[in-house]
Amino acid sequence: MKELFTKLYIKSKTLTGSLSISAAEIAKFIGGEVAGDGSAKINDMSSVAFCKPGNITFASNEEDLAAAEKSPASCILTTVKKEKYAKTAIVVDDMKKALTMMYNAMLELKPRPKGEVHPTAVISQSARIGRNAMVGPYAVIEDDVKIGDNARIGSGCFVGKETVMGDLCELFSNVVLYPQTVLGDKVTIHAGSVIGADGFGYVPRGEKIYKVPQMGNVIIGDNVEIGANSCVDRGTFTTTVIGSSTKLDNLVQVAHNVKIGKAVLIAAHVGIGGSTEIGDNTMIGGSVGVSDHVTMGNNVKVGGKSGVHGKIKDGVTVMGYPAIDADDFRKFMAARSLLVKHLSRLKKLIRQTPDDGETSEKQTKEG
Amino acid sequence: MKELFTKLYIKSKTLTGSLSISAAEIAKFIGGEVAGDGSAKINDMSSVAFCKPGNITFASNEEDLAAAEKSPASCILTTVKKEKYAKTAIVVDDMKKALTMMYNAMLELKPRPKGEVHPTAVISQSARIGRNAMVGPYAVIEDDVKIGDNARIGSGCFVGKETVMGDLCELFSNVVLYPQTVLGDKVTIHAGSVIGADGFGYVPRGEKIYKVPQMGNVIIGDNVEIGANSCVDRGTFTTTVIGSSTKLDNLVQVAHNVKIGKAVLIAAHVGIGGSTEIGDNTMIGGSVGVSDHVTMGNNVKVGGKSGVHGKIKDGVTVMGYPAIDADDFRKFMAARSLLVKHLSRLKKLIRQTPDDGETSEKQTKEG
Amino acid sequence: MKELFTKLYIKSKTLTGSLSISAAEIAKFIGGEVAGDGSAKINDMSSVAFCKPGNITFASNEEDLAAAEKSPASCILTTVKKEKYAKTAIVVDDMKKALTMMYNAMLELKPRPKGEVHPTAVISQSARIGRNAMVGPYAVIEDDVKIGDNARIGSGCFVGKETVMGDLCELFSNVVLYPQTVLGDKVTIHAGSVIGADGFGYVPRGEKIYKVPQMGNVIIGDNVEIGANSCVDRGTFTTTVIGSSTKLDNLVQVAHNVKIGKAVLIAAHVGIGGSTEIGDNTMIGGSVGVSDHVTMGNNVKVGGKSGVHGKIKDGVTVMGYPAIDADDFRKFMAARSLLVKHLSRLKKLIRQTPDDGETSEKQTKEG
Repeated sequence: MKELFTKLYIKSKTLTGSLSISAAEIAKFIGGEVAGDGSAKINDMSSVAFCKPGNITFASNEEDLAAAEKSPASCILTTVKKEKYAKTAIVVDDMKKALTMMYNAMLELKPRPKGEVHPTAVISQSARIGRNAMVGPYAVIEDDVKIGDNARIGSGCFVGKETVMGDLCELFSNVVLYPQTVLGDKVTIHAGSVIGADGFGYVPRGEKIYKVPQMGNVIIGDNVEIGANSCVDRGTFTTTVIGSSTKLDNLVQVAHNVKIGKAVLIAAHVGIGGSTEIGDNTMIGGSVGVSDHVTMGNNVKVGGKSGVHGKIKDGVTVMGYPAIDADDFRKFMAARSLLVKHLSRLKKLIRQTPDDGETSEKQTKEG
Repeated sequence: MKELFTKLYIKSKTLTGSLSISAAEIAKFIGGEVAGDGSAKINDMSSVAFCKPGNITFASNEEDLAAAEKSPASCILTTVKKEKYAKTAIVVDDMKKALTMMYNAMLELKPRPKGEVHPTAVISQSARIGRNAMVGPYAVIEDDVKIGDNARIGSGCFVGKETVMGDLCELFSNVVLYPQTVLGDKVTIHAGSVIGADGFGYVPRGEKIYKVPQMGNVIIGDNVEIGANSCVDRGTFTTTVIGSSTKLDNLVQVAHNVKIGKAVLIAAHVGIGGSTEIGDNTMIGGSVGVSDHVTMGNNVKVGGKSGVHGKIKDGVTVMGYPAIDADDFRKFMAARSLLVKHLSRLKKLIRQTPDDGETSEKQTKEG
Repeated sequence: MKELFTKLYIKSKTLTGSLSISAAEIAKFIGGEVAGDGSAKINDMSSVAFCKPGNITFASNEEDLAAAEKSPASCILTTVKKEKYAKTAIVVDDMKKALTMMYNAMLELKPRPKGEVHPTAVISQSARIGRNAMVGPYAVIEDDVKIGDNARIGSGCFVGKETVMGDLCELFSNVVLYPQTVLGDKVTIHAGSVIGADGFGYVPRGEKIYKVPQMGNVIIGDNVEIGANSCVDRGTFTTTVIGSSTKLDNLVQVAHNVKIGKAVLIAAHVGIGGSTEIGDNTMIGGSVGVSDHVTMGNNVKVGGKSGVHGKIKDGVTVMGYPAIDADDFRKFMAARSLLVKHLSRLKKLIRQTPDDGETSEKQTKEG
């Protein structure tokens, strides 16, 4: 399938210089069926509220379809089957899958918009900006920064000295990269996120609190996406690492010295404590707290709002506070229901049991 | 009461062109009693540390009253009763209520400060800025944006293309609105918040992780206030909605496709998962995590730090992780206390019970 | 020890005008042993990846040591003992301690970089900027602000009117200080944090929600450090206070009217509810939620992800949701393990207990 699209790409570029695929070509790629004129040319995808002529839009129900048919879009991707559509339609069974396939292909296919460096951007003379890179208004780029080709730096971003970014990176507005941050290719960081700030390290001594120097940096692999207002702290003495294809949601905290593997999914409000290591393909639900110095294996799943500490083996699903095996957590929930429903029976059971137990408890402690 | 103030408003404007109400008029409106010169003219309210001549300040105890009497303020709102005040005083029983009434009335009464567009703001030629709107230094406003009258856009804000804002909206510094965001009238967003970033949607397939396109937008109703550094993600295919009069605290996360009703109060650090729906007048305590695809009714109350999933009916109060009915949660807490206090008795009880139970457990599972 | 460094400082400044200490002097101060040329001059410290001639770098294992020996650094701090090093080495037993001591001393010793006000900074004519202060590009400083000597204001910061900052404060990029914020000396605030936004106060009345005016401010003591993307709200009628030497991590929320004591350590994602008071030297783990109106004593420790309410006495360690004494929490965890392991026995025990209990339970409620 990849081959098909590469071929299409070349053809489209040759013909037009900008994206232009036919509805029939898209249908073939995403496994849909064309109704109407398969030769209709598509230049982009967008939702019905914002679509323009040449766009393909989408509709999952009759109401949306009616709106899409009245819209300026040139083609409709739809799961609604009917005799005749007001314009070219591509009919599919699974909208999410179809749109995801189409979107990712278009990401590759679409010619990059022309990169321009806004005249208000403050760029050090020693910084090296790649070809066709876009730098927005009021961005600040410090000494010895290297930015790859086709990068897009949003308005108000700060890129600290000696930072290195690969090709096709995108920083939305007001992102801050502290000095010496390293980004691979195709890294996307949403607005307001801060990469490379000092980790939280202090040594209290008597009345004073001494700051531990945070002298490492952050290295982020290829194809990483980081949500809005998230934070990844620089290493204390070495490096905080986020592996390639890993995705962080909004408001995530990654502390100093953390090593996150590849293709890890971390939902919003997750906090990961210092020096924790997380394996590949692990998934962490929203609002989870992971303590410091935790070791989490590959393919681990952590249920939302859990608190994780210690060592979590490969492939395990954990949940709870502190997190335990998910099956055990379900048993605990069953026990909780019993205790809530039969609180008075629990009281009675406890009352009926002679309290020599308390003694044996103490003995156990001393033993 | 509203009528009184409208009347006052007209009168004040006619007379002076800027806010000027007498102490007696304020006292009448908030239900207080004037001590001293009721004709003293008030132009604004402020705390004692920052007050200027013409201001009304406030004091809830003798110490604060002494400070207020020495301040340049022209009038003091106070709950401290005494014979004689050093300047005009309005005596009330409930300070919070009095200040809240006065503040909200003054919001309506105070003539809007003159809006100016700072010469450094980068504004697209196709953007339409309303009358008397203020645009701060280094703000960036993209193509086809529409901003209503009397709006205030803080320094360093980014307003993405095709965004629409009603009248009297206020964005504090460094707010980011991604393209196609829609704000009603009187929407206030505090510094650093990000509205309309991509939702967290990925489809893992073998070794690759495909991004689900986030093609919807965010619509925010009238009179919504959003705290600092919060995030509201755009819809995947449709719209993320925040109903009118809803208030979000700081560092709140609202995921893609969420629908929040009217007059909902959401405290700090709350995370709301994708496609969740929340009814009107619901209140959610701090640090709560709401899972994805939750349905929460009207007038629900969620206790702080709870984890909510499933379906919560109208008017219910829930708490815990996972959240259960608040009464049940209290029973569980009673059971926890018993178990902690009598751990050894629990051990004894368990020990005394023959373990054929474990077998029946398995049978239940298989049954 | 302090005396030694003051002496060194004067000497160094006299000699060179910029930092220049010998390896022998550093070794003496941090209690290490010099191997090689003790007269080697040191001008700064940095990790091996970014070090330059004149720097001291560090290595905790043989591999790092090999890299450090090949680096341009002039001196190596190391815990690895061997016969001969490729360049001057200082050998210590505890790397973290040695680096922390050296870092804090160098902070004092290093001559401040020359402060410059970037020509793009928008600074009110009534603002007073201290000697040798640095103001970055696109910073905005409003009326009547006072900034102390040697301050550093990062790019894109907003400093609201009537704000007062002491000497040697540092704001990283895109920090927002709302009007009337007060910072002591040596306050460091990392990128994206927002100080002084409105607290979350509303009075619902019928269909409308009235905003409680937030008219106080924020006062932050000396030597405070605040992480990235954190929020500290202004007081409602009075002041939100953060005591000197207190440290906040990233994404922390401090609500209105909170009073935090001295030398308190607060980890990431902690939320502190309105009007809560926290004593000196208290430590709060990550993702903790503290309710409003909590009173927490001195030297309290709160385990990660706990939920705290009520009153916590001096010196107590608490944990759990809601938080209880840490010993009790451990007992509860033991009970949880028992219940999970022997769920069927619990069921049996409950089943065997006659349900007159439920009646007595009800009676208790009515009683």
